[in-house]
Amino acid sequence: MRDVTEATATEAVVGKLAGCENARLKQVMTSFVRHLHAFVREIEPTQAEWFTAIKFLTDTGHMCDDKRQEFILLSDTLGVSTLVELINNRKSPGMTETSVLGPFWVEGAPHLPLGASIVKDGTAADLLVHGRVHDAEGRPIAAAVLDVWQTAPNGMYDVQDPNQPAMNLRGKFTTGSDGRFDFQTIMPTPYPIPHDGPVGALLTATGRHPWRPAHLHFIISAPGYRLLTTALYFEGDPYVDSDAVFGVKSDLVVRPSPRSDAAGSEVRYDFGLERAE
Amino acid sequence: MRDVTEATATEAVVGKLAGCENARLKQVMTSFVRHLHAFVREIEPTQAEWFTAIKFLTDTGHMCDDKRQEFILLSDTLGVSTLVELINNRKSPGMTETSVLGPFWVEGAPHLPLGASIVKDGTAADLLVHGRVHDAEGRPIAAAVLDVWQTAPNGMYDVQDPNQPAMNLRGKFTTGSDGRFDFQTIMPTPYPIPHDGPVGALLTATGRHPWRPAHLHFIISAPGYRLLTTALYFEGDPYVDSDAVFGVKSDLVVRPSPRSDAAGSEVRYDFGLERAE
Repeated sequence: MRDVTEATATEAVVGKLAGCENARLKQVMTSFVRHLHAFVREIEPTQAEWFTAIKFLTDTGHMCDDKRQEFILLSDTLGVSTLVELINNRKSPGMTETSVLGPFWVEGAPHLPLGASIVKDGTAADLLVHGRVHDAEGRPIAAAVLDVWQTAPNGMYDVQDPNQPAMNLRGKFTTGSDGRFDFQTIMPTPYPIPHDGPVGALLTATGRHPWRPAHLHFIISAPGYRLLTTALYFEGDPYVDSDAVFGVKSDLVVRPSPRSDAAGSEVRYDFGLERAE
Repeated sequence: MRDVTEATATEAVVGKLAGCENARLKQVMTSFVRHLHAFVREIEPTQAEWFTAIKFLTDTGHMCDDKRQEFILLSDTLGVSTLVELINNRKSPGMTETSVLGPFWVEGAPHLPLGASIVKDGTAADLLVHGRVHDAEGRPIAAAVLDVWQTAPNGMYDVQDPNQPAMNLRGKFTTGSDGRFDFQTIMPTPYPIPHDGPVGALLTATGRHPWRPAHLHFIISAPGYRLLTTALYFEGDPYVDSDAVFGVKSDLVVRPSPRSDAAGSEVRYDFGLERAE
């Protein structure tokens, strides 16, 4: 190992992992070193470019505190979060796609009766969301709990905005024996991810915008089924085809239609849950 | 881009760089995304493993301040610093290899006459270092300046150790018209890189030690020649074959011999400088 040359450098580092007793860590680090070195060999960074990368990582670390996770933003904007989520949620045909959890879910949203509104700030609820939760054979799943949350018209979640009542635009609904659910809300709005830090600067430098299309978050749980973390997106949204964090899947894009029975519009979506292993 | 699947995720992210006007940044980020995704696809991290990586990067960032650069330590221990240095210092046969600069070089080491000692704390200098600085044709380079620095016997550089006089074991020597230099010192000692942070924990978890073999640093400059940053290592050192930061090259390993003219030992080394482009 005293003869580290361009030709031998990668295997010299990999060889150092021979004594690693944690087999998974050894596999991860071996793969990481090989791919990282392949990247360095491909781009041949100057010393100044290398230092720019060190500084970027340092600034990204310094931006992280108990309210801001800049490395997760980096992972999101490089598509890594979505790729990890896809790898961990391979699904059967017909079952619902997952989508990114995001940083705005909170514990303890109120349990509400079917048909209730999640709007708490006095705005008129003009969107009905309804559908069924079913298994792989299309049979209804009773007592499934849908935890839903979304932005207000100003693009902010309640936890970001002191002017919204607590738990505004959040609620939990439980399906009946027919697997059906329905609730009242308003249209969510697009919003930018936090972009005043190093990740925002990188987006700007690479000609990218920080916007996410409007979406309605769901975590759906039912005993005996795999937890489903997903979101619905909206046809016609200006960012539905350019989500900064790669969360959109075509099966999750809906088109609200006018309600026949009342003012406003409605979205119908049926969620298919995988049985737990 | 709304149809992000395992198959399409990588090219979806690369496609977002289409609007990047900085051609080099576009090339670097495209390569980085492809290699990073290839790594994720190979190891298929769980969500918990992904979060461990986020936390490791965050902790590494938080360890960085004006005195400590934990991301450089990470780069060093993953062999990236050495690989970048090798790529940037491809040399002609017979010219001297480069080695890592490290964090302990300081500006303003004293200019000393040839033959002087760099030991300032009263310890007897018992190692003579001498040789020639030459060009690719073996001709002497006059007025080359050798900036040298090393650890004290306790494994610390003067800047780390309030008990050492300032500029202890540092000095600059200028070659004469014959290209020759010589100075007096003591043997440097092995020392561990800072290992009380996340990078030290990673070394431990992967069965690696944090030690660097003893070495004598040099930056050699001469008008019309490429700056040479290098170091000499010592045959028989316990860590010469397992340097934590991959700095050792076999051409830089020397074996001190007993002095014929005085007590102590000597090292002779000739440095070959590349002509500047």
